[in-house]
Amino acid sequence: MAAQAPDVSLVKKDAHPFERAQLEGLMTKRFFYTQAFEIYGGVAGLYDYGPSGAALQANIINHWRSHFIIEEDMLELDTTIMTLSDVLKTSGHVDKFADWMVKDTKTGEIYRADHMVENVLEARLKGDEEARAKESGAGAAAAAAAAPAADDKKSKKKAKAVAVKLDDAQVAEFHKILAQIDDYSGAQLAELIKKYDIRAPASGNEVSEPTEFNLMFESYIGPTGQTKGYLRPETAQGHFVNFERLLDFNNGRVPFASAQIGKSFRNEISPRAGLLRVREFVMAEIEHYVDPEKKTHARFNEVENIVVPLLHRDVQKAGETTVKHITIGEAVRSGMVDNETLGYFLGRIYLFLEAIGIDTQRLRFRQHMDNEMAHYASDCWDAELFTSYGWIECVGCADRSAFDLTMHSQRTKRDLMVQEPLKQPKVYQKYVPTLNKKVLGPAFKKDAKLIEDTINNLDQDALKALEADLAAGNASLEANGQTFSITNEHLTVEYKTIKESVRNFTPNVIEPSFGIGRIFYALLEHSFWSREEDKERGVLSLPPLVAPFKVLIVPISSNEQLSPLAQQISKKLRSLGIASRIDDSSATIGRRYARNDELGTPFACTIDFASVSKGTITLRERDTTSQRIGTVDQVVDVVKQLCDGRLDWKGACQILPAYTGTQDVEA
Amino acid sequence: MAAQAPDVSLVKKDAHPFERAQLEGLMTKRFFYTQAFEIYGGVAGLYDYGPSGAALQANIINHWRSHFIIEEDMLELDTTIMTLSDVLKTSGHVDKFADWMVKDTKTGEIYRADHMVENVLEARLKGDEEARAKESGAGAAAAAAAAPAADDKKSKKKAKAVAVKLDDAQVAEFHKILAQIDDYSGAQLAELIKKYDIRAPASGNEVSEPTEFNLMFESYIGPTGQTKGYLRPETAQGHFVNFERLLDFNNGRVPFASAQIGKSFRNEISPRAGLLRVREFVMAEIEHYVDPEKKTHARFNEVENIVVPLLHRDVQKAGETTVKHITIGEAVRSGMVDNETLGYFLGRIYLFLEAIGIDTQRLRFRQHMDNEMAHYASDCWDAELFTSYGWIECVGCADRSAFDLTMHSQRTKRDLMVQEPLKQPKVYQKYVPTLNKKVLGPAFKKDAKLIEDTINNLDQDALKALEADLAAGNASLEANGQTFSITNEHLTVEYKTIKESVRNFTPNVIEPSFGIGRIFYALLEHSFWSREEDKERGVLSLPPLVAPFKVLIVPISSNEQLSPLAQQISKKLRSLGIASRIDDSSATIGRRYARNDELGTPFACTIDFASVSKGTITLRERDTTSQRIGTVDQVVDVVKQLCDGRLDWKGACQILPAYTGTQDVEA
Repeated sequence: MAAQAPDVSLVKKDAHPFERAQLEGLMTKRFFYTQAFEIYGGVAGLYDYGPSGAALQANIINHWRSHFIIEEDMLELDTTIMTLSDVLKTSGHVDKFADWMVKDTKTGEIYRADHMVENVLEARLKGDEEARAKESGAGAAAAAAAAPAADDKKSKKKAKAVAVKLDDAQVAEFHKILAQIDDYSGAQLAELIKKYDIRAPASGNEVSEPTEFNLMFESYIGPTGQTKGYLRPETAQGHFVNFERLLDFNNGRVPFASAQIGKSFRNEISPRAGLLRVREFVMAEIEHYVDPEKKTHARFNEVENIVVPLLHRDVQKAGETTVKHITIGEAVRSGMVDNETLGYFLGRIYLFLEAIGIDTQRLRFRQHMDNEMAHYASDCWDAELFTSYGWIECVGCADRSAFDLTMHSQRTKRDLMVQEPLKQPKVYQKYVPTLNKKVLGPAFKKDAKLIEDTINNLDQDALKALEADLAAGNASLEANGQTFSITNEHLTVEYKTIKESVRNFTPNVIEPSFGIGRIFYALLEHSFWSREEDKERGVLSLPPLVAPFKVLIVPISSNEQLSPLAQQISKKLRSLGIASRIDDSSATIGRRYARNDELGTPFACTIDFASVSKGTITLRERDTTSQRIGTVDQVVDVVKQLCDGRLDWKGACQILPAYTGTQDVEA
Repeated sequence: MAAQAPDVSLVKKDAHPFERAQLEGLMTKRFFYTQAFEIYGGVAGLYDYGPSGAALQANIINHWRSHFIIEEDMLELDTTIMTLSDVLKTSGHVDKFADWMVKDTKTGEIYRADHMVENVLEARLKGDEEARAKESGAGAAAAAAAAPAADDKKSKKKAKAVAVKLDDAQVAEFHKILAQIDDYSGAQLAELIKKYDIRAPASGNEVSEPTEFNLMFESYIGPTGQTKGYLRPETAQGHFVNFERLLDFNNGRVPFASAQIGKSFRNEISPRAGLLRVREFVMAEIEHYVDPEKKTHARFNEVENIVVPLLHRDVQKAGETTVKHITIGEAVRSGMVDNETLGYFLGRIYLFLEAIGIDTQRLRFRQHMDNEMAHYASDCWDAELFTSYGWIECVGCADRSAFDLTMHSQRTKRDLMVQEPLKQPKVYQKYVPTLNKKVLGPAFKKDAKLIEDTINNLDQDALKALEADLAAGNASLEANGQTFSITNEHLTVEYKTIKESVRNFTPNVIEPSFGIGRIFYALLEHSFWSREEDKERGVLSLPPLVAPFKVLIVPISSNEQLSPLAQQISKKLRSLGIASRIDDSSATIGRRYARNDELGTPFACTIDFASVSKGTITLRERDTTSQRIGTVDQVVDVVKQLCDGRLDWKGACQILPAYTGTQDVEA
């Protein structure tokens, strides 16, 4: 999607303006993450998480597990990454899970076609703005400010903006194309490339016709080379192939949900957006199985009053990106969101993102347009988060209808259906044919099977007519262009009373699917700022719920008297399940606090000589840098409450007095 | 290793004899795990974990994280599965990570060579036992009992035992071969196959010469087909390539450890031992970096009195499998275990396995023999667990020396060393050459570089001689078969005083590496039994620490009055972090308890009409089936203490009175 920045007042007050390079520097310096195989030159689209990043990721996943799986008794799965090719053939991935790529006709460099078009048109729009700004005398600064997101996008291969004014109609057209850029087929992209003479940004050469590239990594299972496998591109198929066992585990009843957290893989054509477009990533996926005739949700009332920002498909088709703020209840009642279950999950997703520290003013739910929607989906809303790369899809929430289960059932001849006992058996009458195979076989020989299939496929009207014809003795059957005479000896048709006490149906699947790495990155951008008085150093305002470490323990000097107390506090916090780190390096106290801020550690306990003589330590809060004082037990108790979310900093300040550097504290 | 069963009295008292098929039936019925892509016919060596298995696995991993990572402040990592081929070339995996395979010369069926030899020789030994039993008149039953483990091994392709008596020398020889089966090279396996006329078990045909098959899954990264990747066969390389950043994160100091939990892959030739030999598996690996001159461990005293069963390499070479029970302290002091750090981890591994419910009498630590040891290791001990498949390697604990860091450093020209500031600077004298490049270059032209390299590689004796020759004016240098005359104008040699204040060294790495799936399976075998009075149904005596669900909540009937209370207890337990499941199916109470036993759920809360009228519920313990009674709050409090390990069942019985079916309880 083309980027439209939310209200600029969102930037943290008193903060230095956001610079992505600064955040990225912090990420490697404090080892949140780094490019994989860096010492070997690195591989695009592969990242390793270090201790801070691994802990932050683990905390996000833990909260996900508790918010979704545990809270709703979902059935957790752990299925294989290596996937039999037949399974992905059935799901459509072997044929359709592809992106369009183009090649520079001279250098051979490869581009993802839609990204190249987007990139070039954005550069032309930017050039137009600059040209207009020059005309009006406002200068380049204003123009640059007008397109903050496009500026950073795809920094390595980006098309350069040249100050060329476009006519107004063309500007409008480009905006419209960009609003729908995810919606184009290969042929349409080829047309755009031709129409607007779009060339390889790095060289200015012409590019080849777009061709499809399948995004799955392939390999062979076993030594024979005969069993083909792919690394799964999503965890979902692992749920569907186990549907029978899951349903049985749930005593045969729907609705229920399965959930899985694990790695998936996409062999991206040309990944260049940091953690946002990677070849290996953690997903957390829920498959919620519902009766297609009853997509209500028992706990809908818990979310219906949440106001969410929705960007409807029709708005996008008109080339607009204006969101509507509306309660989930209203969105479902008005039909904007298809059903209660889909609405329920939009609400739960919103609450999850809010809890881990996402700025909800940089969140919107965008509905998929028709071409853009995955081949299996009947409706889909993405939770998008605004970052310096623009709006990024972080959670997909799709109604996959009965697509997957139906396809797997057809392919494997397994009955992937729910049997619902009917309270009131369904009683009705219908015409039922009974074949007399002993006579039919010898009479029609090789055609017997054809006749049998034809009869079994007749509808009620045809059966009714056949009954009459048989009674009249002039029955015949058309099959495969031939006509066969048949009699009461071959078959009978009766009008029978049928009593059904079970209803069979294939459940529909609502799928909330989370890209954990993208959420992780957006959260870092939303949490990052730097103090006006110390622009060089960043602060990560991560909530205690997800911060990698909750407490930094800082002995004020390397004096040996202080070390045992640091160990003792660390042990006490560990026994309460609170992750802490001791920083007993020789750096100044200010520098160690700054390191604390860069790690996003919300609290610091400082040990000084008063700690040894009077048993007091100070507690520093990251965002305000204010310090309070108390005995070790008082401080640890306050920290526990802060980490559990039972207390905020204001509350903590009512319990612990401000630290003035001199006072005593009552034990 | 050839299987030697531990003392048979280990089988649980009053238990029905262990039958693997019964355990496997329970695993699929209660959806612990199942073959992956079962509805597509399945793929050997790939398994999916269902809700019970995923929860059990998650609990094992959680305890691992707490026992190792949190307890010892290890630096957790999450690095990529997809690995650049260069990295695995450096580590030796591209060249050496292979097994020997043979092909049936007629059918083309493929066997892993060492497994085939083992399998055929075991079958011959069994045939011999049967023949001897017949001779002595004891019958086949005794013979079968004599080899319980071999009987089930590799059930699908196993060689059939034919009752043929062997001479005593041959029997001894076969036993000796089996005791060393992991120690043979391809050529040695070829020799054994020829010498003993070993043929394909399924067909009796001859097999081909053993050839190497690399066990890594390969793929290509990106659309060009030029960047080769492998799925990692271990997580270890992801630690080593990040060593610089890890060391920096730890303020430049050793010892410290990094840890990682994640999937790894091995493209096994012919996997047929259930969860024990799989193509995709979860590993948990620790890389502990130590000073090679100081392999002591600060917390060694915490483990030195633990008695562990050790099987020394020399004992195995003699064809024996007798373990020695010895304290870790003694094992290290006697040199049996190489150093304190290795010993420390053997102790920690022992405590971990004991805590999750492994029967420590079915555990031994076996030292690797020379050929068997991985190419990088200088010493290695495996924690092996006894199962119906024999003794299985579940944890490897290797001293990888400086192998990996040295190799990666040489290949990438990165300095993967620790700089230790010396308290006392090291002062010494040595001869130091200084080249005058401005003269050297023009004088020797294309040979100048050769001369420079030769001089820089001279040892102290040669430099001393060179100094004397230069002073005498008759210096010359031999390089590449040529002799060059050199003078004081080209270079000078001085005897200088050197002061070093930093010591540089490449740390050694001690690596405890856990196969979580194998531990998971061994734990299930160690926990499984069935009651004499109900042989058909299994019981899994899993400790509360790892049991998938801690409490089953069972309303005694489907009466609507009971349902809200079940929900209320479930919610109460959830808020305490205790996983529970409600079973409100229409099955009888006995059947629901049995289901509880099969899931390994240690406790059940039963809700009856007294629960509604008097507020009491009963608490049933799985292993004893005894029941106690109390108010909801009393029972929940006891359950919490039981799950936290603060109380055992005996203690619980002192708090809650026995349930007699009639009594009231004081609130």
